Amino acid sequence: MNPINLTIFNEFVHERKNEAVQKVYPNGMHEAIAAHMRLQPGISVRCATLDMPEHGLNEDVLAATDVLIWWGHMAHDTVADAVVEKVHARVLDGMGLIVLHSGHMSKIFRKLMGTSCSLCWREAGERERLWIVNPSHPVSQGLGPFIELPHAEMYGEFFDIPDPDELLFISWFEGGDVFRSGATWHRGKGKVLYFRPGHETYPIFYNPDILQVLVNAVRWAPFSGSPNVTTITACPQITEPLEPLRPAT
Amino acid sequence: MNPINLTIFNEFVHERKNEAVQKVYPNGMHEAIAAHMRLQPGISVRCATLDMPEHGLNEDVLAATDVLIWWGHMAHDTVADAVVEKVHARVLDGMGLIVLHSGHMSKIFRKLMGTSCSLCWREAGERERLWIVNPSHPVSQGLGPFIELPHAEMYGEFFDIPDPDELLFISWFEGGDVFRSGATWHRGKGKVLYFRPGHETYPIFYNPDILQVLVNAVRWAPFSGSPNVTTITACPQITEPLEPLRPAT
Amino acid sequence: MNPINLTIFNEFVHERKNEAVQKVYPNGMHEAIAAHMRLQPGISVRCATLDMPEHGLNEDVLAATDVLIWWGHMAHDTVADAVVEKVHARVLDGMGLIVLHSGHMSKIFRKLMGTSCSLCWREAGERERLWIVNPSHPVSQGLGPFIELPHAEMYGEFFDIPDPDELLFISWFEGGDVFRSGATWHRGKGKVLYFRPGHETYPIFYNPDILQVLVNAVRWAPFSGSPNVTTITACPQITEPLEPLRPAT
Amino acid sequence: MNPINLTIFNEFVHERKNEAVQKVYPNGMHEAIAAHMRLQPGISVRCATLDMPEHGLNEDVLAATDVLIWWGHMAHDTVADAVVEKVHARVLDGMGLIVLHSGHMSKIFRKLMGTSCSLCWREAGERERLWIVNPSHPVSQGLGPFIELPHAEMYGEFFDIPDPDELLFISWFEGGDVFRSGATWHRGKGKVLYFRPGHETYPIFYNPDILQVLVNAVRWAPFSGSPNVTTITACPQITEPLEPLRPAT
Repeated sequence: MNPINLTIFNEFVHERKNEAVQKVYPNGMHEAIAAHMRLQPGISVRCATLDMPEHGLNEDVLAATDVLIWWGHMAHDTVADAVVEKVHARVLDGMGLIVLHSGHMSKIFRKLMGTSCSLCWREAGERERLWIVNPSHPVSQGLGPFIELPHAEMYGEFFDIPDPDELLFISWFEGGDVFRSGATWHRGKGKVLYFRPGHETYPIFYNPDILQVLVNAVRWAPFSGSPNVTTITACPQITEPLEPLRPAT
Repeated sequence: MNPINLTIFNEFVHERKNEAVQKVYPNGMHEAIAAHMRLQPGISVRCATLDMPEHGLNEDVLAATDVLIWWGHMAHDTVADAVVEKVHARVLDGMGLIVLHSGHMSKIFRKLMGTSCSLCWREAGERERLWIVNPSHPVSQGLGPFIELPHAEMYGEFFDIPDPDELLFISWFEGGDVFRSGATWHRGKGKVLYFRPGHETYPIFYNPDILQVLVNAVRWAPFSGSPNVTTITACPQITEPLEPLRPAT
Repeated sequence: MNPINLTIFNEFVHERKNEAVQKVYPNGMHEAIAAHMRLQPGISVRCATLDMPEHGLNEDVLAATDVLIWWGHMAHDTVADAVVEKVHARVLDGMGLIVLHSGHMSKIFRKLMGTSCSLCWREAGERERLWIVNPSHPVSQGLGPFIELPHAEMYGEFFDIPDPDELLFISWFEGGDVFRSGATWHRGKGKVLYFRPGHETYPIFYNPDILQVLVNAVRWAPFSGSPNVTTITACPQITEPLEPLRPAT
Repeated sequence: MNPINLTIFNEFVHERKNEAVQKVYPNGMHEAIAAHMRLQPGISVRCATLDMPEHGLNEDVLAATDVLIWWGHMAHDTVADAVVEKVHARVLDGMGLIVLHSGHMSKIFRKLMGTSCSLCWREAGERERLWIVNPSHPVSQGLGPFIELPHAEMYGEFFDIPDPDELLFISWFEGGDVFRSGATWHRGKGKVLYFRPGHETYPIFYNPDILQVLVNAVRWAPFSGSPNVTTITACPQITEPLEPLRPAT
């Protein structure tokens, strides 16, 4: 069986600007996630950051990527539109995409959703509990009935996203809010997961349950559908009908 | 009861360039639709075309529009991005949008969907039959079990759209194809309907069943939800929690 | 315009057995709801209770009912299967159904859902906050961004229901739980809403926001779709095809 | 890796009563499917028929079954309600269920759907073409853009089912009809697929594309979700809240 080719994109800005972040993620959040992924059988890991040429996401990399994890926050606007277009096309063509936390405002996520992806937020280190509401889904494998995070940034409704194809997790927050924290959509031949947890100053990406979700998601997200259906061609004309037409009258 | 303010956008290019089209729609497709809408109680009609300043869709018009019908085909690229942005924001804020036929490739529809919106097509005047697959939906009011069009352009799967919130019609085509011909999504506070029929050289917009669908859609599409939820703000921070937080430890 | 014919079913057992309940709802919960509905223009109200012949839901009543509200709890098993069958057939034929609170375990709701409809619960008078997650929906009209109930019974996930067609409200509970508190499905030509609030000892059915939701729901639920599609016939054979078939070979 | 335990249920009545059926499926349709499944690595096959004690579906068999395929037609009413209850509970607890063709009117499918599951039909050996409308789904793996069957019984809309969680195939029929031929739902922790093809007198279950769909479905359907969420318990009371409640006032 071929390994799953995973690329982890992190804008990697907070970690180099802010000491508090550096302490939690000395090599960047991508490396925290990558370290865990490298321990999993059948997953091959590559990292990409904003400062690389084409943000580390050139055509060859994208073509060879089965699943792309995306973390961004303060530098969304710096991501080149040309790269966003290529990532978008690759998702429609079957690449899985896992968008984490503040990635909800990334260009690629907003382009795939078609909405503002706006939400409410508060940074007060409050308790979060993610309840599983779709226990049949592979992304919840080995978990449940909930995941608890002692300290988290709050994201609250209304979260302006299209109705998910599958709603996986709903978060409860100490301060009185709720949030649709895990949701999937398919776009073309690609699968998309939004997963809420993952702030730069809380050690969320060391939490075993969160890592379990990410591993599950990486195993779920690769293309496994119909290769003979095209999704990104510009409206092919089919001159010859499959069935005979009535003679013109 | 206030009337529904309907704006009908038509790029209005075919009708001025092509004699065959002119014969079918001498005043443009928008006027064929508008004429029928003006006969309906409680619907107030305005038209907008590509050649008007801001395509007839400036902020005042959009603010005063409850439902926007969109027809475009050969001039999609000519639609100004700034207008598309404003229409998009207005949909998220509650304006209904009805996209017709070749409008599937319009900038606004693709932006709202997040996919390529590609499909297959053939222009051979073949028979189409639209089967109702959601008889509980107000857009199918007074119709069914199917609508028959003696001559239509074929649109075939795979139609690269997100899974509809509601699938209303599935088309059968003489030449052997099927198509998801009526589908709805909500985006923010706005409702979106894609409705397939409506070619420039077939007299589709004089067909009583098609007109019935359009009237139903115009009555269904206006905002009727929660005015106190904001959808286009850029992530408001909520400093004060609704519930007391545990003291920091 | 014809009035909406609303029938309110209440098992009406708690109110006659328990003094605390009687104090809150001296004439039964149905009468509390009915009193508010009678004030609304265009809604005609009838009540039905378990102790009536056929539970007040004979064929004539059902045939004349556009929307049925259902409250039950301790006497679910006493509801006659024959009545459940008739209500079920009437929903498939277009009657709207609004199931309240403990009605989640009623025979009719479980039959329509196909799942156990099980959930977790706690009766501790805790605070509940229902967040609107679909602000485009008519059932949320005039509300938002949330409804607050100072004291409520807790219902928690996992709520074993099919994925809703539309998820309208998510509840936050003081004790740490969340719940999908408002959800719709269509079944055949009928619309179904499950709405969580409504315990027998809390004065929930006097809360103006809750009553607003119920009025919205009663206006949304009546049949407004395609009358020419049949949903409860047993598989009609269509001998004559709409299109000519190839000669047999 | 453990094998997938597949049980194939066939009522096995037509094949013993009707010579034409016997000729096509001398050992029954279940054996035609089973023969192909036995060739697949990692699938362990068992068959069950109506005439066995408890229809071959006693508690031990169900507990050891990861995926159940169901074919029934003329003897739906003969299936014992007690067996249906057990199969239903097992689906909610995570067993995958694949319902074929005329199984749409089986007790178990109707119980899981909550609707009449009625449809239109015609037996005229006409051509069917199943178009893939969700190319991201594992059940469409290796196929597409369509599957063609030269001779098939027609099933036509309106098919009275709940909106599918995922719509996979739409059929075109020579006689002018369409049908939602592949659709999934989850119920509790279990996955359900309805797949239309499979008549007793056409050699559908020898068609390589149909067999491919069935193999894909058997690999997709087993439980892979959250084992710690219960779906069939009757509403557990949770006395101790996860969070401290305000003191009663």
